[in-house]
Amino acid sequence: MYSNGDVLVGEIIGTAILILFGAGVCAAVTLNHSKAKSAGWVVIAFGWGFGVLAGAYTAGPLSGGHLNPAVTVGIAIDTGEWGQVHLYVIGQMIGAVLGAVLCWATYYAQFQANADADKALPTLGIFSTAPEIRNPAANLVTEIIATVGLVLPILAFGLTKGLGESGTATLVVAFLVVGIGLSLGGPTGYAINPARDLGPRIAHAFLPIPNKGGSDWSYSWIPVAGPLIGGALSGIVFNAAF
Amino acid sequence: MYSNGDVLVGEIIGTAILILFGAGVCAAVTLNHSKAKSAGWVVIAFGWGFGVLAGAYTAGPLSGGHLNPAVTVGIAIDTGEWGQVHLYVIGQMIGAVLGAVLCWATYYAQFQANADADKALPTLGIFSTAPEIRNPAANLVTEIIATVGLVLPILAFGLTKGLGESGTATLVVAFLVVGIGLSLGGPTGYAINPARDLGPRIAHAFLPIPNKGGSDWSYSWIPVAGPLIGGALSGIVFNAAF
Amino acid sequence: MYSNGDVLVGEIIGTAILILFGAGVCAAVTLNHSKAKSAGWVVIAFGWGFGVLAGAYTAGPLSGGHLNPAVTVGIAIDTGEWGQVHLYVIGQMIGAVLGAVLCWATYYAQFQANADADKALPTLGIFSTAPEIRNPAANLVTEIIATVGLVLPILAFGLTKGLGESGTATLVVAFLVVGIGLSLGGPTGYAINPARDLGPRIAHAFLPIPNKGGSDWSYSWIPVAGPLIGGALSGIVFNAAF
Amino acid sequence: MYSNGDVLVGEIIGTAILILFGAGVCAAVTLNHSKAKSAGWVVIAFGWGFGVLAGAYTAGPLSGGHLNPAVTVGIAIDTGEWGQVHLYVIGQMIGAVLGAVLCWATYYAQFQANADADKALPTLGIFSTAPEIRNPAANLVTEIIATVGLVLPILAFGLTKGLGESGTATLVVAFLVVGIGLSLGGPTGYAINPARDLGPRIAHAFLPIPNKGGSDWSYSWIPVAGPLIGGALSGIVFNAAF
Repeated sequence: MYSNGDVLVGEIIGTAILILFGAGVCAAVTLNHSKAKSAGWVVIAFGWGFGVLAGAYTAGPLSGGHLNPAVTVGIAIDTGEWGQVHLYVIGQMIGAVLGAVLCWATYYAQFQANADADKALPTLGIFSTAPEIRNPAANLVTEIIATVGLVLPILAFGLTKGLGESGTATLVVAFLVVGIGLSLGGPTGYAINPARDLGPRIAHAFLPIPNKGGSDWSYSWIPVAGPLIGGALSGIVFNAAF
Repeated sequence: MYSNGDVLVGEIIGTAILILFGAGVCAAVTLNHSKAKSAGWVVIAFGWGFGVLAGAYTAGPLSGGHLNPAVTVGIAIDTGEWGQVHLYVIGQMIGAVLGAVLCWATYYAQFQANADADKALPTLGIFSTAPEIRNPAANLVTEIIATVGLVLPILAFGLTKGLGESGTATLVVAFLVVGIGLSLGGPTGYAINPARDLGPRIAHAFLPIPNKGGSDWSYSWIPVAGPLIGGALSGIVFNAAF
Repeated sequence: MYSNGDVLVGEIIGTAILILFGAGVCAAVTLNHSKAKSAGWVVIAFGWGFGVLAGAYTAGPLSGGHLNPAVTVGIAIDTGEWGQVHLYVIGQMIGAVLGAVLCWATYYAQFQANADADKALPTLGIFSTAPEIRNPAANLVTEIIATVGLVLPILAFGLTKGLGESGTATLVVAFLVVGIGLSLGGPTGYAINPARDLGPRIAHAFLPIPNKGGSDWSYSWIPVAGPLIGGALSGIVFNAAF
Repeated sequence: MYSNGDVLVGEIIGTAILILFGAGVCAAVTLNHSKAKSAGWVVIAFGWGFGVLAGAYTAGPLSGGHLNPAVTVGIAIDTGEWGQVHLYVIGQMIGAVLGAVLCWATYYAQFQANADADKALPTLGIFSTAPEIRNPAANLVTEIIATVGLVLPILAFGLTKGLGESGTATLVVAFLVVGIGLSLGGPTGYAINPARDLGPRIAHAFLPIPNKGGSDWSYSWIPVAGPLIGGALSGIVFNAAF
């Protein structure tokens, strides 16, 4: 049992690190004047996975390192303990906004170079997800299934003898997230985490980025609702099957 | 010793996750309107490997997470215990079909976009393997050797002090599968698992995918027979050498 | 507590290995007549990460394997023990110069081929970092944030139950470094380590490489100051939050 | 202490698996009609690394899984025990030839397709290494340094608390080998193992491959001598420093 303060601080720091790395890798492959420009999907998937590694190991001693409301909901359904869920989610949202701001600061000169209207690039994709084919029902299903692919294994990892004791469980989650990106990220860009998508979208809306384009609020409910449904579904399936 | 019900449930869930990720990564790099379109062989190999990670860790507490009749046969020859082999294989086949359906649901909009006949792509390669050069004897040998490259190490992992106790064995198997893809997947696309190939092929045959093309049943016996022979051979070599 | 001699020897050997691998991968993708020519950013990021793996595991038993003054400063702020900091930093600087010389020896024939003025390539980028957009304030911020992304998680890893005991902590740091490269390396090439940048820059200045170009001393203070600030900031945040 | 029979069997099986994967990945990216054709240097480096993983974990319980005369020599200098060195080396050589034959069988149809003289490719690079710039002294130095980058860390891993007990040491060696490939493989293709180069070269000389080209015996002493010198040097440095 973590203290309320530790939960809040841990989730803020951990989610900020996650989004710093995750939005960072999208900035790295998207923006002009970046050494990783156009480095491809494998770089994005590993960047997000190792962002989970960095954030979750850091937050781990304070809050267990959920960093994701879908994970928090899945664990709450599994354990039946809902008392700190709101603290986790508040911390995750604050951390996600903070991480997006840190990403902007890290790539400040690159974002400023977007002021050149002739070479300006759309920037929302650095912060939040968007579907390749806009189809709300299909996009929602994609996010639900991809989130089950994340949360159900995480719940099961707790049962593997020695995995937690040796500190390896978080490493395995990181590679799991790489795998989800590679395999299930094609249609919608795999939010699989409401805070990961909504927090940076809020940051995108208020950050002073030249030629930043719109924040696509009409799509924003899907990467929130889909992962929450997927997380809940994972908890239900886990309780039924294990 | 796992209960019969746990074996069945574990292998269904675990194999479904494996195929969701594995067919998923093939969909991701193959289909139009996917963010990972044409992302290359390294993405496919890591996608399948981390699919094993996701599926095998999830199934592990219930059934040990074989997810592959070739592994089940190899272990049965090693241990001499054949009583639950049929349950493992039934679960694996059900799970493989289910996973292919989940992949189709995840990429539903992309599969529907295949209705545009001008840009339609063959879809069987997302579900099942096919050889680059059609030569039954050579293809069979390739699948046998690649499967020995999977199952013989898995049998030996059980002897490595601490590997199982620390929960790391499954992580090692995941990287082993990545390696098989990179090194031995060139000629036939490395089924190395009868359920992985036959289950999705069945799903491909009945799923309503536009312009899906044929299901190539004439080849389908090779990725079943080759892995089964390879799994059995691994058990025999293991018993003789270790 | 490590002996003074072990600290010095360990940091020299470990940092030399780190830079051999890190400068090596930059040579591999940059120089003509290299099998990894133009192999891309993913290769650079993994090359540096596995250089950390090689160097830190080797130095670990002697000195704990810091290999980086920013890590040493962060740990000193955390623990309040400053008595051996100068030994660590001296060892890291000697090792970094030595590693750069070893990289030059490994790629000797390739560096000599740079004598062909028509095909000569700038070589400083093999040894030291340079920003894509030269903006001292922005570059400094980038290095500070990226270094916090390295050192804060490293400090937190020490609190994860079992991670150190199982020897896995260093493996996790290696993947963390890969992640920093993928995600935060775009603007400045991620020095995140004063010794990693200054040592090889010194070596570049004295090594007899044909057409080697300048050593860009005007930029050299940023990859020293940024990481030191980032390391100190990490120690302060860690003490406050954990 | 392993029995003489186990040493021989373990090194034969383990080295055969190593070369099957390693030569396999070179076949995969080189030959026509392979799904991994032209997949790049990152695929080669990970393929060899995971070949080490597969071979060394398999051989581990029987012989400790050296798979490399340079490792065997380094360990013998460290421990002073030379009684089984000849058995290790004999097993490694037999295994390396066997692994190359298995690679040829796996890619049999692809090798046969090389009979088309118009599209025939040189095949020695699948089996053995060759320098990008032919310079015996420089090539020898490259192989010596790269081998020290392999063997010195391996010797040091034995001192890291918990690494061996948790079975993680071999996983770390696998990533180390990936790193050597990425960082130090550019000039000569990183033999770093006399058996890895000489065994497949012998196999290349006798296998009935159409248009196979010469076996380049004039270079063959460098990837034998360099790694042996590097292995011995590692043992000497290790004994002096640790």
